[in-house]
Amino acid sequence: MKLHRLLAGTALAPALFLSLAAQAQVTVFGVLDLGLSRLSASGTSGQSLLNGDGNTSSRIGFRGTEDLGGGLKANFWIESAINVDTGTSGATSTNNKDSVSGGLTWGRRSTVGLQGPWGELRLGRDYVPSFSNLTTSMHPFGTNGVGSSGLLFYPVNAGGTTVRTSVRASNSVGYHLPANAAGVYGAVMLASGEQPGGAATSKDGNHQGLRLGWRSGGWNMAAAIGKTRYATGDYTQSNAGINYKLGAARLMALWGENKVGATRTRALMLGTQWELSAQGEVRIAYTTLKASGVASDATHLAIGYVHDLSKRTALYATAARIDNKGAGTRFNTGLSPTRPGGSSSGLDLGLRHSF
Amino acid sequence: MKLHRLLAGTALAPALFLSLAAQAQVTVFGVLDLGLSRLSASGTSGQSLLNGDGNTSSRIGFRGTEDLGGGLKANFWIESAINVDTGTSGATSTNNKDSVSGGLTWGRRSTVGLQGPWGELRLGRDYVPSFSNLTTSMHPFGTNGVGSSGLLFYPVNAGGTTVRTSVRASNSVGYHLPANAAGVYGAVMLASGEQPGGAATSKDGNHQGLRLGWRSGGWNMAAAIGKTRYATGDYTQSNAGINYKLGAARLMALWGENKVGATRTRALMLGTQWELSAQGEVRIAYTTLKASGVASDATHLAIGYVHDLSKRTALYATAARIDNKGAGTRFNTGLSPTRPGGSSSGLDLGLRHSF
Amino acid sequence: MKLHRLLAGTALAPALFLSLAAQAQVTVFGVLDLGLSRLSASGTSGQSLLNGDGNTSSRIGFRGTEDLGGGLKANFWIESAINVDTGTSGATSTNNKDSVSGGLTWGRRSTVGLQGPWGELRLGRDYVPSFSNLTTSMHPFGTNGVGSSGLLFYPVNAGGTTVRTSVRASNSVGYHLPANAAGVYGAVMLASGEQPGGAATSKDGNHQGLRLGWRSGGWNMAAAIGKTRYATGDYTQSNAGINYKLGAARLMALWGENKVGATRTRALMLGTQWELSAQGEVRIAYTTLKASGVASDATHLAIGYVHDLSKRTALYATAARIDNKGAGTRFNTGLSPTRPGGSSSGLDLGLRHSF
Repeated sequence: MKLHRLLAGTALAPALFLSLAAQAQVTVFGVLDLGLSRLSASGTSGQSLLNGDGNTSSRIGFRGTEDLGGGLKANFWIESAINVDTGTSGATSTNNKDSVSGGLTWGRRSTVGLQGPWGELRLGRDYVPSFSNLTTSMHPFGTNGVGSSGLLFYPVNAGGTTVRTSVRASNSVGYHLPANAAGVYGAVMLASGEQPGGAATSKDGNHQGLRLGWRSGGWNMAAAIGKTRYATGDYTQSNAGINYKLGAARLMALWGENKVGATRTRALMLGTQWELSAQGEVRIAYTTLKASGVASDATHLAIGYVHDLSKRTALYATAARIDNKGAGTRFNTGLSPTRPGGSSSGLDLGLRHSF
Repeated sequence: MKLHRLLAGTALAPALFLSLAAQAQVTVFGVLDLGLSRLSASGTSGQSLLNGDGNTSSRIGFRGTEDLGGGLKANFWIESAINVDTGTSGATSTNNKDSVSGGLTWGRRSTVGLQGPWGELRLGRDYVPSFSNLTTSMHPFGTNGVGSSGLLFYPVNAGGTTVRTSVRASNSVGYHLPANAAGVYGAVMLASGEQPGGAATSKDGNHQGLRLGWRSGGWNMAAAIGKTRYATGDYTQSNAGINYKLGAARLMALWGENKVGATRTRALMLGTQWELSAQGEVRIAYTTLKASGVASDATHLAIGYVHDLSKRTALYATAARIDNKGAGTRFNTGLSPTRPGGSSSGLDLGLRHSF
Repeated sequence: MKLHRLLAGTALAPALFLSLAAQAQVTVFGVLDLGLSRLSASGTSGQSLLNGDGNTSSRIGFRGTEDLGGGLKANFWIESAINVDTGTSGATSTNNKDSVSGGLTWGRRSTVGLQGPWGELRLGRDYVPSFSNLTTSMHPFGTNGVGSSGLLFYPVNAGGTTVRTSVRASNSVGYHLPANAAGVYGAVMLASGEQPGGAATSKDGNHQGLRLGWRSGGWNMAAAIGKTRYATGDYTQSNAGINYKLGAARLMALWGENKVGATRTRALMLGTQWELSAQGEVRIAYTTLKASGVASDATHLAIGYVHDLSKRTALYATAARIDNKGAGTRFNTGLSPTRPGGSSSGLDLGLRHSF
């Protein structure tokens, strides 16, 4: 019987049967991460907040895999952000240029694809390849909290360009190497802004990206590049990370460059994820930023501790400080904006639970 | 113990117990359909898009049935659209007149009801009866992709009336005949726009609809009519379909009329769903449209192929062309607008996965 | 293995395994309540509506509890409103001052927390303690339908203050007493509007609340107070309820006061939930309101019947009437606004189903 005919029917099969069938077809998953933050900048009185995502981005999603036989699989994945402090959801972008918000969207990820011994093909909204080097596999804090790689590794908007593709792109076709490719992993993505033709902005939001990495023994290394077209100034993100597991400590280095039009920022991070015990991990990251044509040079020091209550639940604390070296101001997600020549600091104390 | 007291409690029962209870109570279901489309109109350069819903409308929903004993059942169903290419959701209408969008809504369906040997009563937002004849049971392509029945069987807005009830209506009470009524099936619906009284627009969005059909052996036939009130001009949708399964081919005919105020469009489709093999089905539809007072006469030819990778997953390809006969322009969902006297064509290549 | 590393991986574990794991981790739950309402006010023609939530507020949610060992548990809960008649969702507030709507939000509840023998700590968006005395544990009709406690026990906005915290607050930290505290129960909450510092409105939306109760034998009694800061006039909600189960009838009394700036409303309700049979319950509530500086004195009489078709499904009917004693107009959620010196009445007939 064809599925489209099955869907067209109005009769409900017995709920139990449907539930058992569904059990193998869809997985509900998510993260809720919330805590207290104390944020301050030199010359201001500071602010205390209930702040989410200090350790892991809060989300709810639905995903599944169907075995089609002969090594072929069909995959789907939809995932929405949750702002646990207020119950709101995250934004998405339909054209990789403008933001869409105002209620739940599957803006974190929305893909359907096929997977085989040859790798995985994904269609939809997904992470751009160059984002992956900013996560916890290459940066001790990933992109979360006051220690986030995003503070100095994300682009600074300039010249009329607001970058929407430093993390994800809509209207994308992506290919991922298979899992067991002798330690080699990687992905390539093409995405479209789907702008009307014949205008100066007709290529706005078009993205192409590539990532290639290698994992073996205690070593993990990867490099990536991504470019997004905007009539007001193209955006290019390049980065490379390498780390080595030396006993209980993973020693990590990450380099990244963002070009937005004629501006450029370059960041270099040295850090570690150090397993103190089966439950506890210390994280340290020190980053220096060189800016050209936008914002100022800066340094970012972050020290944190994650205490696992279980595989699914953890308490965490992170303290961080950004020092601004020059006359330009850098506005940072998760920390108060630094003043010219000043500093800003932040403290996260939180609880992260996943399901 | 009364449920309202159960809900008022703040204590959580053990998760395992709740999960097992929930297992028989709610089913998560959905479709993700995404592919590449190439759309062009005579005199334009055309556009390539990542385009969803070429075969089946993408969605996520939750539904369940409770056996109340004595043949009585309680049913619920909430269902939301997914735009897989961008992670956004679909719009709904609270008054069958204006559109509401900006985040996830249960705009595809949101009903609660009772079902017995006497049929099913549904309250909420639901499909109007006259929509059902435009789906795959009566049109080879249903309302999806470049072969969609909607291209010529949907109404053309005119005279200030934007029709919101050609597919669904909010604030509705519906009755459906039981499944085993000697092959006879049908539904009747009353819906309200719930506009304030005492104004010229106080009946805007009020809908009444009826569908009656008969299925027996290889035969399936149904007729339906629906009317929605708008002060700017009422909307009436009438249609009738008949099809017969001759060997591997289902031969299909569909007639439909839309009146919006003083305007009228009438379409006639002849087509087939032809099962080439256990996995493959060819679809062909040829439609002619006669327009009066709005847009132009037109023809629509669509040829497609659906290849089932499993009961849940399929690859599909559809090619279609609309020829515009007169001076009026017809704007079509899913295809570029035709120019006066010109044509537009489209190609869908996609993957549909359901769970 | 650390969870953050697990999340970073792109490989999908077998769907079946994930589903079985998820089974004990997340529970999908909800309510769909919809029916017909007839609302009228003296001097108007009245209106018939398909109206939701006449018995219980419609919702869908996801919740779970993880046993961390040693009596410690991690809890999460996200819950969204459903307007079943139209498929839209409910609003939330990010600062306890302004409303956010336009798509699904987890505005009903969004919390993560830890629970132990010492009680429960919750972070996020949650009910304020003083709301709990307005629900079915202290008022025969709770806050639903034409008999809702909210009609006279909710605040009247005044002096530029629109109250957003009479039910819930965002950015909150809450503590709940453990379940087996010798019949004593209670909660305390601190919530922040998270307004920028240094302005007259910097404390807007800051809330503090407390509730303490005692349940023993047939007795249940509780008192609560909550205060929210607004530069245009603070909001204070105080209430106390007591009820006693005498045979099949629960005799209930509830007193409540709302102060918004310089205005004040005080309501006193006497009523009962009377179990006629294992399936049927009669509800009666009579409320008198004294208003000072805003609106008018009023009375509210409501009589209802709830018929359980099962533990999960019920039919209900409620009739209610508000008489307005003075020159002021009181606008009531769920009933037409009363005219000065006039009355408004309402009738609900509905179906409530939970899963």
